[in-house]
Amino acid sequence: MTNYLWLVIAAGALGVLYGLVQTASLMKADTGNDKMREIAAAIQEGASAYLKRQYTTIGMVGVVILIAAWLLIGQYAAIGFLIGAVLSGLAGFAGMLISVRANVRTAQAASQSLSKGLDLAFRSGAITGMFVAGGALLGVAGYYAVLTEVLGLESTGREVIDGLVALGFGASLISIFARLGGGIFTKGADVGGDMVGKVEAGIPEDDPRNAATIADNVGDNVGDCAGMAADLFETYAVTTVATMVLAAIFFRGQPYVDVMMLLPLAICGICIVTSIIGSFFVRLGKSNNIMGALYQGLIVTGVLSVGAVWYVITTLVTGPVVTTGGLQIEPMNLFWSGLVGLAVTAAIVVITEYYTGSNFRPVRSVANASVSGHGTNVIQGLAVSLEATALPAIVIIVGIVVSFQLAGLFGIAIATTTMLGVAGMIVALDAFGPVTDNAGGIAEMAGLPSEVRHSTDALDAVGNTTKAVTKGYAIGSAGLGALVLFAAYTSDLQYFASNPADYPFFANMGVVAFDLTNPYVVVGLLFGGLLPFLFGGMSMMAVGRAAESVVAEVRRQFRENPGIMTFQTKPEYGKAVDILTRAAIREMIVPSLLPVLSPIVLFVAVLFISDKANAFAALGAMLMGVIVTGLFVAISMTSGGGAWDNAKKVIEEGFTDKNGVVHGKGSEAHKAAVTGDTVGDPYKDTSGPAVNPMIKITNIVALLLLAVLASGSIG
Amino acid sequence: MTNYLWLVIAAGALGVLYGLVQTASLMKADTGNDKMREIAAAIQEGASAYLKRQYTTIGMVGVVILIAAWLLIGQYAAIGFLIGAVLSGLAGFAGMLISVRANVRTAQAASQSLSKGLDLAFRSGAITGMFVAGGALLGVAGYYAVLTEVLGLESTGREVIDGLVALGFGASLISIFARLGGGIFTKGADVGGDMVGKVEAGIPEDDPRNAATIADNVGDNVGDCAGMAADLFETYAVTTVATMVLAAIFFRGQPYVDVMMLLPLAICGICIVTSIIGSFFVRLGKSNNIMGALYQGLIVTGVLSVGAVWYVITTLVTGPVVTTGGLQIEPMNLFWSGLVGLAVTAAIVVITEYYTGSNFRPVRSVANASVSGHGTNVIQGLAVSLEATALPAIVIIVGIVVSFQLAGLFGIAIATTTMLGVAGMIVALDAFGPVTDNAGGIAEMAGLPSEVRHSTDALDAVGNTTKAVTKGYAIGSAGLGALVLFAAYTSDLQYFASNPADYPFFANMGVVAFDLTNPYVVVGLLFGGLLPFLFGGMSMMAVGRAAESVVAEVRRQFRENPGIMTFQTKPEYGKAVDILTRAAIREMIVPSLLPVLSPIVLFVAVLFISDKANAFAALGAMLMGVIVTGLFVAISMTSGGGAWDNAKKVIEEGFTDKNGVVHGKGSEAHKAAVTGDTVGDPYKDTSGPAVNPMIKITNIVALLLLAVLASGSIG
Repeated sequence: MTNYLWLVIAAGALGVLYGLVQTASLMKADTGNDKMREIAAAIQEGASAYLKRQYTTIGMVGVVILIAAWLLIGQYAAIGFLIGAVLSGLAGFAGMLISVRANVRTAQAASQSLSKGLDLAFRSGAITGMFVAGGALLGVAGYYAVLTEVLGLESTGREVIDGLVALGFGASLISIFARLGGGIFTKGADVGGDMVGKVEAGIPEDDPRNAATIADNVGDNVGDCAGMAADLFETYAVTTVATMVLAAIFFRGQPYVDVMMLLPLAICGICIVTSIIGSFFVRLGKSNNIMGALYQGLIVTGVLSVGAVWYVITTLVTGPVVTTGGLQIEPMNLFWSGLVGLAVTAAIVVITEYYTGSNFRPVRSVANASVSGHGTNVIQGLAVSLEATALPAIVIIVGIVVSFQLAGLFGIAIATTTMLGVAGMIVALDAFGPVTDNAGGIAEMAGLPSEVRHSTDALDAVGNTTKAVTKGYAIGSAGLGALVLFAAYTSDLQYFASNPADYPFFANMGVVAFDLTNPYVVVGLLFGGLLPFLFGGMSMMAVGRAAESVVAEVRRQFRENPGIMTFQTKPEYGKAVDILTRAAIREMIVPSLLPVLSPIVLFVAVLFISDKANAFAALGAMLMGVIVTGLFVAISMTSGGGAWDNAKKVIEEGFTDKNGVVHGKGSEAHKAAVTGDTVGDPYKDTSGPAVNPMIKITNIVALLLLAVLASGSIG
Repeated sequence: MTNYLWLVIAAGALGVLYGLVQTASLMKADTGNDKMREIAAAIQEGASAYLKRQYTTIGMVGVVILIAAWLLIGQYAAIGFLIGAVLSGLAGFAGMLISVRANVRTAQAASQSLSKGLDLAFRSGAITGMFVAGGALLGVAGYYAVLTEVLGLESTGREVIDGLVALGFGASLISIFARLGGGIFTKGADVGGDMVGKVEAGIPEDDPRNAATIADNVGDNVGDCAGMAADLFETYAVTTVATMVLAAIFFRGQPYVDVMMLLPLAICGICIVTSIIGSFFVRLGKSNNIMGALYQGLIVTGVLSVGAVWYVITTLVTGPVVTTGGLQIEPMNLFWSGLVGLAVTAAIVVITEYYTGSNFRPVRSVANASVSGHGTNVIQGLAVSLEATALPAIVIIVGIVVSFQLAGLFGIAIATTTMLGVAGMIVALDAFGPVTDNAGGIAEMAGLPSEVRHSTDALDAVGNTTKAVTKGYAIGSAGLGALVLFAAYTSDLQYFASNPADYPFFANMGVVAFDLTNPYVVVGLLFGGLLPFLFGGMSMMAVGRAAESVVAEVRRQFRENPGIMTFQTKPEYGKAVDILTRAAIREMIVPSLLPVLSPIVLFVAVLFISDKANAFAALGAMLMGVIVTGLFVAISMTSGGGAWDNAKKVIEEGFTDKNGVVHGKGSEAHKAAVTGDTVGDPYKDTSGPAVNPMIKITNIVALLLLAVLASGSIG
């Protein structure tokens, strides 16, 4: 086993190494003219300043939790939390550092050819992707190796389990702050900048006279890049950890328990290799089909992963395994479960492209509705956003059923792990979006020829879809993984309850009925169900307030400095960044703490009203409730937002409606489409994506609550 | 017992009688001048034509189901279905007939004074309210009396239970068609008319030159009145029936089982009396506070109901009762449960007023966001709509916990029944809204002085809130009642499974695990959860298409008949009504059948993949899933829509923003607010309210599926 574990760690290191090597090569690319460099430097400075301040704030929350984890659970949990938090933060920071360097280089490359622009942008995305996947694998496998191999702790013991879960919690906590803070920043800048610039002052998007433009570009990097990277890091780490925990529970006492715990790590490790290989296949063909080029890389990764996962599973699992529940699982069934995970990924990619791509019914219907006005654009966009949830949900349902039939709950866990295995490639597709968005902004501000902007716009439109894909993928894996986390919760609970001598809190509490006929289960479902809605409402209001602060500042600059409008003086970009930084950090705190505190509040409330068994039942049901509504809220927001954004792009390229009339930039239809795009902004880049870490946090807090109660430090 | 049952029927008859007497008095009111009468006649004609065509279409679906019910379950189920369907249809038709007569009389009364306008509008609402409550009670209690007293069937036997459940299904089926068809009609007219009139032609709302105006007014009557009446009829009937079924299951074999089955009917009966009394207390005080006047009536009804429910419960239930599960319930605990129902009603009224009333933070925040543009208006409105779900959900959670602690599942059932008991009064508050909306339209079209319009607008603004209240109330009762329906499902299932000799389909199927650890339960939750989203998306797109057909028609009329714009020729109002009628009826079919067919599809699919036990588990979980997401989707849509509508009204009255600038009709802020209002229209009047009957249908179809399988005609 030991050798394989070190191989996994090597695979994680390979991912990071790939990132470092590619970064070195990326840095050599041409950064264009002085004006471009100047703009890029301003974006870099703003992004670094924001992230530093954001992480300082999160750090304060983190230290409190670190101490609490140490006191309430133990040193290994505290250290695990620290590792997860620091690495998740680093993944975000690295994503930002890469993208603020890639943006200007992409603008320059795009001024040469679309193909070169795509190459550079995708390469920067791949760097972030490999940092995320490699870093997460290094963190989880590395800490596991230290605990079991170096310190010699029992792999299925509480110290190791609690340490790994705490690592997941650290990653989740950072990621919700990063997603939300970054999301509020980027959309506050975007919405506020558009309102005061495009609507009030009548100047184009990304016009250098708008003091919010730099902030808008900073936002792409701290939100869509850093926030996304931290989010995917979290998804990757939590899923791997949850599968390991489930393996420890299901195969406790069996000779192959260590193999089964290693299995998710090994699958992830080999998929890093296939992702790296796939990344070399992203090349623009003669047809200039950007999405096709990206798909090429993704398909290569997928196909190679099928073989690789088969190899890993059949090598490690040499014969049938039996769970503590008595279910016998054949190795091939585990492989088929892994395939289910890859199939779910593929299906979600295709469905998301259908709902957010420029060439399909949904986006075109939104474009068409824009012709009759703002209201109908929004109605159609909302309708699309609601409808877009159905197919992904059915895919997830089918994924659950098939993998469960194959290999029980562990089959679902393996499907989820394999799905996340290719995260490096998926992140690569996503991170390329904000880079091209930024490149477009730089091209505009630096006054590059309009063909450059045309190239970056083409890349950006595809970026809108790939961004939606990643979000659908992350939330889809959460839907599939919900059962895994829930199973970890119930199994932990059962274990504690059956060993009351060691865990006195769980003594004599009777049977915990997770049955739907238990009203406390319904209470938990409803309470969990309300969280994504309340969270969505709070985060959208936060964006509104952040945008207002930007509007006020830009208005002030226009008013106090009339030279800005006539290009005689430059606006104070830094001031807008600074104001937004403070607004975003202030606004991210309360919604981020909602999922951290809610499980504890519900547990204590039901404990007070009823008894321990019902409190645990309500808490468990809450985990399921938050996923049931969260899945739909998140998918509807991210797909709807993507559809609105691309409907606007479709019109900007000249949209011919049913009556043969062509609508372009500046038309009434375009104005309506801009409204939809504005509405979609916080939907798809703030509230929607933050639901994924929110779901995870709720689940992990519940697991940690069990750990705290089991430790005997409370109760 | 018998005497009390006839008393209940008498109370139902009293409600209907009140309606008839008040109608006679209403008809005597002044109908204004010839022009007003002419307009009103056109509205009447359009509304009748639409409803006739709608009910003919529904009738065809109904006949198929009637025959199926007869063949698959039996004659009593078929007759019950027929009664429920016919009465629900009649309730809708009556609501429409009243409101198309009250609208012109209210316009005339409002031209004399606000107080007279309120009096007339509310009186017409109260007529509809009493028809709905009285009719539903007559239907349920009457059919129950015929089955048990006249035909002498056993009250807890399958014939009676299936007959009552089928009655509920008949009511639900009609109501979803009526809600959806009416909702698509009314919002198609509203959205389409506004788009082509206000936006394109630049003429005001309700301008007689717009061919869609009559259709818009027709829509208020067939959607907000007829649809709402059918919906509330359904809610009332289904809740009463579900409580009776639960009583039959819980107290089977006890001497007081008939008393317990009578209890929900008796509570509803006495509450009809208190609602009638309360309706006389709606009088406008010197302060001209319309909401205050309505509250006065509601509070009187509420306070009287407390005493009345106490009297009924303590008279009928003379000592502790014991369920088959062994739970002993004191009569006073049943009374306290009833009080919980009234408290939930009061809380939902207050919360809904907060979120949709013109004087509170949410509506004012939407008005304020309108100042910065269309996009921010919509963002803030969506944020409010999401946030607005949290408090009602918590109220429902607390209601479930408290009534369950008091008297177990039967306590929840009594709470829900009592909540629905005062439906007559709640419907009165609601039905008054569309009447005043119509009155405003007639005033505008007939060229009455602007003060009249001012009065009707003031009434209409309150109507927006009361309409949102009714919807929150209906969906809230569904949330509370979900457990009752689910309990009926599980108890029925348990009963069949424990008597395999009589019900061979249920033999040897093993334990049905409704446990959240069963993946098929999660599958059911997710599948149920997707229905409200998909349904919402489909119905909003339907409104979009219906609106487009209106736009095309009005454009054609303007183009082909230039005299319309110069007031020389009248537009062809009937043509627009006709086109919309066809569109609405075409569009209502598929979404309405979604909840009818989904339970069957899921059951068969899981049966095919797994086994009977898991198929029943998935189906049960689906019922819970549809309520968990449906509750939030419905509340967010209805509250958000109300907030948008009133934000527009606030601006029309002159809104002073944070910087002291006043925005009024025609301002940029007003245009943005109109966009929000347009978006809110299908949200609050089509998709949102139709979720309530959708949830019920899913539940009842599941119950009927059990009945079919038990009958042995299939399987």
